[in-house]
Amino acid sequence: MLQPIQWTDGKIILLDQTKLPRAEEYLEITRLEGLIAAIKSLAVRGAPLLGIAGAYGLALAAYQSKSSDQLFDKLYEARERLAATRPTATNLFSMMDRVVECAEEFGEGVDVGVLKAAIITEALEIHDEDRELCESIGRVGNELVPADANILTHCNAGALATGGIGTALGVIYTAHKAGKKIKVFADETRPLLQGARLTVYELMAEGVEVTLITDGMAGYLMKAGEIDLIIVGADRIASNGDTANKIGTYTLAVLAKENNVPFYIAAPSTTFDMDIESGAEIPIEERDGAEIKIINGELITRGDVKTASPAFDVTPAALITGLITENGVIAPAKLTKLH
Amino acid sequence: MLQPIQWTDGKIILLDQTKLPRAEEYLEITRLEGLIAAIKSLAVRGAPLLGIAGAYGLALAAYQSKSSDQLFDKLYEARERLAATRPTATNLFSMMDRVVECAEEFGEGVDVGVLKAAIITEALEIHDEDRELCESIGRVGNELVPADANILTHCNAGALATGGIGTALGVIYTAHKAGKKIKVFADETRPLLQGARLTVYELMAEGVEVTLITDGMAGYLMKAGEIDLIIVGADRIASNGDTANKIGTYTLAVLAKENNVPFYIAAPSTTFDMDIESGAEIPIEERDGAEIKIINGELITRGDVKTASPAFDVTPAALITGLITENGVIAPAKLTKLH
Repeated sequence: MLQPIQWTDGKIILLDQTKLPRAEEYLEITRLEGLIAAIKSLAVRGAPLLGIAGAYGLALAAYQSKSSDQLFDKLYEARERLAATRPTATNLFSMMDRVVECAEEFGEGVDVGVLKAAIITEALEIHDEDRELCESIGRVGNELVPADANILTHCNAGALATGGIGTALGVIYTAHKAGKKIKVFADETRPLLQGARLTVYELMAEGVEVTLITDGMAGYLMKAGEIDLIIVGADRIASNGDTANKIGTYTLAVLAKENNVPFYIAAPSTTFDMDIESGAEIPIEERDGAEIKIINGELITRGDVKTASPAFDVTPAALITGLITENGVIAPAKLTKLH
Repeated sequence: MLQPIQWTDGKIILLDQTKLPRAEEYLEITRLEGLIAAIKSLAVRGAPLLGIAGAYGLALAAYQSKSSDQLFDKLYEARERLAATRPTATNLFSMMDRVVECAEEFGEGVDVGVLKAAIITEALEIHDEDRELCESIGRVGNELVPADANILTHCNAGALATGGIGTALGVIYTAHKAGKKIKVFADETRPLLQGARLTVYELMAEGVEVTLITDGMAGYLMKAGEIDLIIVGADRIASNGDTANKIGTYTLAVLAKENNVPFYIAAPSTTFDMDIESGAEIPIEERDGAEIKIINGELITRGDVKTASPAFDVTPAALITGLITENGVIAPAKLTKLH
């Protein structure tokens, strides 16, 4: 499996996902600015992976501190600056909070070496736990996958989006390894083509059969009876089950309802934001229109055309068949009842 | 308005739409092979425009004939070869049939000069009539457009797809000229980006406000209440109202139903195929996967990934609010009753 992020000797080693599949290049991050730029450019992306990157970003700040006072200053500053990069995925915020709380439990009076060790250990644990969460999601989700299944997915919710085998793709890898006959249809996922670039790359590397389609073809395939189920990841799940995920996900859920195709979200419980009542409270990042207008450095339209570029959309809980988590499958209707 | 096709002195002058919006280059077609290549590469495209191109292709064959016998041979050969280029749009077939029938009415005994003149005149008339059809569709459709309207469209059903002001875009131009406040959202329309390349180009040239989005963003905008109505063109309409149009159209219709947005097809009556009972009988062209994998000459994915690439999908009549034709707006439910 690919390792999109690693912590080594006070450095973050990031696989530059903007270069895939053309080149497998790694960035050696030693400064906060470098990590911020990597997050903004989507060199590192995917909700669980952003959580890990945020934790390592704080570890980097701690690692470079000379005193316990300086460490806390750097920690708070790093959290603030990293939190300003991308507003939608919840994991970035919650994992950084977890690292900060770990440091705060020790308090400012403690030796800086002890604090550094605690923070770095916490970040490594977050990474390890995410790996295990993926394995568990894979096992839980596999129960829903028939022995012979055509599965549609969107964007990339795989090894390149997490610390492990992925969420949506984690389910697919687990089913594939269990000997099931899996055929994946991957939406290319415009504008940034994470499906074409990352999902295709991952699945082919692992020997899973994959067919690439444009985003507008998914409905055709569902109507033709070619899709048995849909599994995608999530960037944030509200307490009522409404789910933010890559732009285009809501469209798949509506098409799935029209065509009676089961529609699943696969995500660790760390993706739930129990502080918000519904998807209406999830901020949606607006990306630069250049990402629509320019592909591989070349304009595909008039350079001066207006664009709209929401990076995510919210799928109402009512359109979701089930939320596949490490603890089991949750029917969104039940969340609404609890709520 | 742009002139995507013209007949001049025994030549077909085609605007090469594959080069837009980067360059406005014209192809001078003097041989059938050149026209066939232009149709296959989508240098000329759009259902009504393909009908005109087919008619001019037969005019070219006639123009180059030395005798009346040779003329009929060339005419039948040209029809057969042109018909094999693209299977979905009905206009290509019906307009060529019309030219052939015109020649057959004269019969083989007639002077070749008379036949040539009749055939060329018929092709020019088909072009002129399409211009008028577009104007009428524009007038009819304009009645459905509010004074202040956000209109979503897909692919290109404009001046670049017809012999006149377009079908879907014809309605938009007419509403714009009538002083209505029109804001268009254009789906980029992968894989060949006709929305980003052609619709944006046309609308901006005519001073109509347009915002470019990726295909996966249309649902987000509908859910947000940003879209008042959808108007798209058609490649073939079955006698029950089922409509084939560019891949991704069916998805818009399903999203429109979910979000209570009116969904209109704008097309001349020449797009109806009354010989088929439903959309299930419309052949769907499968395009080369290279059109998905390569953009502006560069791979966007692994070169060896499998693809599926249906060029069109069929929207069931039940999802269509109205068919805007030159004779008025037809509610598909009525077609089903007649049927």
